[in-house]
Amino acid sequence: MTEWSKYVQTPTFLEATRMMMFDPDTRDVLIKWTGIKNGMRVLDVGCGTGALTFFLAEGVSGCEFVGLDIDAHFIAIANEKKEEYAKGGNSFTFVTGDALKLPFENASFDAVVSHTFLTNVPDPHLALREMMRVGRTLSPVTSITAQSFEFIPAHPGFYEKDHLAYYEEWAELFIKLYAAYEEVLPKKDYLLGCHPVLVPKLFSEAGMWDIRMHSLGKSCSTSNAAMEDADKRRYLELLYEAELEKLDAFYELEAFREKITDKEADRFRELMKLRNDLLLAECGENTVWEWYGGASLVMTGIVPPTLRTLLRMTGKDGGISKQD
Amino acid sequence: MTEWSKYVQTPTFLEATRMMMFDPDTRDVLIKWTGIKNGMRVLDVGCGTGALTFFLAEGVSGCEFVGLDIDAHFIAIANEKKEEYAKGGNSFTFVTGDALKLPFENASFDAVVSHTFLTNVPDPHLALREMMRVGRTLSPVTSITAQSFEFIPAHPGFYEKDHLAYYEEWAELFIKLYAAYEEVLPKKDYLLGCHPVLVPKLFSEAGMWDIRMHSLGKSCSTSNAAMEDADKRRYLELLYEAELEKLDAFYELEAFREKITDKEADRFRELMKLRNDLLLAECGENTVWEWYGGASLVMTGIVPPTLRTLLRMTGKDGGISKQD
Repeated sequence: MTEWSKYVQTPTFLEATRMMMFDPDTRDVLIKWTGIKNGMRVLDVGCGTGALTFFLAEGVSGCEFVGLDIDAHFIAIANEKKEEYAKGGNSFTFVTGDALKLPFENASFDAVVSHTFLTNVPDPHLALREMMRVGRTLSPVTSITAQSFEFIPAHPGFYEKDHLAYYEEWAELFIKLYAAYEEVLPKKDYLLGCHPVLVPKLFSEAGMWDIRMHSLGKSCSTSNAAMEDADKRRYLELLYEAELEKLDAFYELEAFREKITDKEADRFRELMKLRNDLLLAECGENTVWEWYGGASLVMTGIVPPTLRTLLRMTGKDGGISKQD
Repeated sequence: MTEWSKYVQTPTFLEATRMMMFDPDTRDVLIKWTGIKNGMRVLDVGCGTGALTFFLAEGVSGCEFVGLDIDAHFIAIANEKKEEYAKGGNSFTFVTGDALKLPFENASFDAVVSHTFLTNVPDPHLALREMMRVGRTLSPVTSITAQSFEFIPAHPGFYEKDHLAYYEEWAELFIKLYAAYEEVLPKKDYLLGCHPVLVPKLFSEAGMWDIRMHSLGKSCSTSNAAMEDADKRRYLELLYEAELEKLDAFYELEAFREKITDKEADRFRELMKLRNDLLLAECGENTVWEWYGGASLVMTGIVPPTLRTLLRMTGKDGGISKQD
């Protein structure tokens, strides 16, 4: 199943957006919230190309990271990338598999994490129960998801007058294209996940203990002096490539071509190039302050003991009667 | 001028919401972004009752914090609170004054910060220039503002069926009340600030150097196990008190009483009590997962040298000619 990587988020898109989504300055606090410590065995469910895994790994050592995704294309890429992150004695294993039936033993991980996963998996209740099943008793299970899915169009005030005309045309086409993508998406199972605001309730309903809520801010601008110019250029190139890839993938589908004309597709490609050239030229100049933001909700709960484990923990594994 | 503290955000409201706005786990990273270091002289412009000042102070020592606000009521409260934060050798001075004409010498602070200020000051361009004027050359000036002002009503899925009926009535009245507050607000100068998305552009237009963008996530729930139960109860009590205070303040105004009937006001008070009792009872039970989130944009720029300073810095203070 590689529909996600072909139609929803290509590996190029993931690589671009994740560069901006995780601020290295917040790595240590995120590691604290996930409860990951040196030497742990950590599972990343719905790992994609490994963005969260690798981000966390840079702050710990001696960990055994396992990433699982249903999309084999993502896993192949994660496996290619893992060499460059193999430092600090961390190891990485990426496997293709079903998050609703995790191919792991009960209680075989010290920490379980996921990023933009519970909001996109067909049965989020079952998915969370699976994460809890493979986590050891009292170990932390973390979900990181966007606080909201609302698309906020860029503010016209971002642009100087001579950019505005082009921007307005681009934004209009962009919205039209994305509406068409939505409508013709071949299979939508993975859009049936938990509503972003209900993730905390999901944790509660799953019976987790000690449920903690934190939040990570996100912001992204190619004028941001906190990022290296080379990284910002790479981000722009990847994002440009990702948009064209996506358009090409959908263009193979007749249902899409019924909604978007050749002329519109060509114009979108032209405008993307114009936009990309503009942002590349201004990159690092601190002038074009187009930016996007948002926040991720970081929920962590503790895996409660099963009755069997509790009895063992309390020395009552000989059995209990109602009088106890 | 104490209209803000009477009609817009009472001290009680500020105290409640700021408890939830700053996550102690992110204190160190915020201090890093603001460029504050031990021993610095730091100005907090539009400091209110000192929430940001005190939050930052807990992570540094030997600093001389100065807070300024136009609202004398806020400053009186900040001055009362400062004793409890006087540790680590930090000192605090809070003064009433106009941010558009700061009563401080040029280049007299090592760092300048502000929270929800540039979005609420009548002339944000001038306000930022004033912050830069009083900062030393190459020192950091930081603005923290909400990424967006959109009000996102709570998701009905937060509530169990038997809470939902009450919630829907409460939400409807809440929206009606706040619309009336907006309309009759006696003076709206302080709603003329910078649009939240244009704060980065404001930094750019002010000629700042090395403009950096970061983001802090916010989240707030009284089921959050990451907060002490006592703090969550205090938050609820303060917020309850703040809503009633605000209603009372507006109720003195005839224009408001023309929009909201006695019956509506009384019903709102009842529903607030119901809601407060519900949340207090469930506080710490990890069950009622009503929550609010969002993100704050953290912009930092460096004060560029004036021509005079630059000449001195480059050893050309004897004067330059065009040939230079």
